[in-house]
Amino acid sequence: MLSKQKIKFIRSLQIKKNRLTEQLFFVEGAKSVLELLGSGMPVTGLAATQEFLDEHRALVSATSAEILVATEAQLVQAGTFASNKAALAWAPIPEAPSALPSQSWVLALDDVRDPGNLGTLLRIADWYGLKEVVCSPTTAELWNPKVLHASMGSFTRVRVWYLPLETYLPQANRPVFGALLDGENVHTQEFTAEGILLMGNEAQGIAPDLMPHITHQVSIPRFGGAESLNVAAATAVLCDNLRRHQPH
Amino acid sequence: MLSKQKIKFIRSLQIKKNRLTEQLFFVEGAKSVLELLGSGMPVTGLAATQEFLDEHRALVSATSAEILVATEAQLVQAGTFASNKAALAWAPIPEAPSALPSQSWVLALDDVRDPGNLGTLLRIADWYGLKEVVCSPTTAELWNPKVLHASMGSFTRVRVWYLPLETYLPQANRPVFGALLDGENVHTQEFTAEGILLMGNEAQGIAPDLMPHITHQVSIPRFGGAESLNVAAATAVLCDNLRRHQPH
Repeated sequence: MLSKQKIKFIRSLQIKKNRLTEQLFFVEGAKSVLELLGSGMPVTGLAATQEFLDEHRALVSATSAEILVATEAQLVQAGTFASNKAALAWAPIPEAPSALPSQSWVLALDDVRDPGNLGTLLRIADWYGLKEVVCSPTTAELWNPKVLHASMGSFTRVRVWYLPLETYLPQANRPVFGALLDGENVHTQEFTAEGILLMGNEAQGIAPDLMPHITHQVSIPRFGGAESLNVAAATAVLCDNLRRHQPH
Repeated sequence: MLSKQKIKFIRSLQIKKNRLTEQLFFVEGAKSVLELLGSGMPVTGLAATQEFLDEHRALVSATSAEILVATEAQLVQAGTFASNKAALAWAPIPEAPSALPSQSWVLALDDVRDPGNLGTLLRIADWYGLKEVVCSPTTAELWNPKVLHASMGSFTRVRVWYLPLETYLPQANRPVFGALLDGENVHTQEFTAEGILLMGNEAQGIAPDLMPHITHQVSIPRFGGAESLNVAAATAVLCDNLRRHQPH
């Protein structure tokens, strides 16, 4: 059974400082826990309802995690969800990747502050096969429970770096397509075989000091009255246009 | 000055029941308040910092709303924001449109529950010039502060109906393009001159009883590992593909 002490411990991982000290993160809900268990990443502990354990016996028996039966109320107490009929798992924060991204297209995020936006962006990158994401150090923290939840399991498939973009972009030595409000129409934009798609902050867009690194300014054509699209919607549209021409 | 009583009154509008009784909604923050003031919609009251009133003198003097000077702390007390350096305004809920949508393309939402998603969808519809949105009665309520905030002012430009879609779709008598996971690739889909883009619930997709009304099943091609895109990102991508062929 999940003890009071363990609930308190998992709750403590909701705070970034404690995640860094313990080098642990947690995910909650059936979707995220199943993705984590199926990912091959090491898992430290699994707290789950008896129903969840029965339903997913194969995955559960394959993990080396400590397994604790929990009530729905206990899962709610330990996590951030208002209801959780399934499970919660905690696992070691993987080491940051050492080598730089190597795939043909990379998503770069400048100062995306909202954890929900970052999670959604990882899900979009994963859908479009952009498996490498470089975030400015001011971007939301990957192991925040809101980021992991919004990513819907994509955090297990997408590699994330935190690097100063003013250093990374010139170092990467490839075309940088920056999303701006007054660039070239993405419907007629030619995409290179390799490149970086650079998206900016929710309110400010791309920081002025990154502008000199942009080789292609690209925009989504507007047909109505809204001033802008939110960063996740804009990224999805740009990735869709990219993949239309560069399927992989 | 904004009185304690008025703060209490505005706070009460955070609850749907009270919005319905009073037939009033409120918006907060500079962007939404400026969009409301500039929209031509009637406005009942405006509470704002002296700085906001000074900065936007022309718009402020044009409104017939009651104007009350407020501190930032009072704006926070009255609204839902954690900080508000600008303004908050309340206004009559407009009458629901009586005639059915008449524009060439209409967005239909089946059971989109999350207020943030609905607001983001209105913003996307507005960007792509889809000025008419038909929601199932189970979709989030338009006048919820979270919907209005996420719409970033687009609620002033997009008309919204709440209708049972099983009645509306056959009545509309035009092609219905339903977003599904196993439909035709949207990159090769031909769009008709008129139509309805139908998007489903965040977790369940489009309800089974609406499937017979779909004339074109359409899907966004996937290049990676995520199981799905969130409804806002998917809608943006589909609208972008639609407008590539049917600019208006």
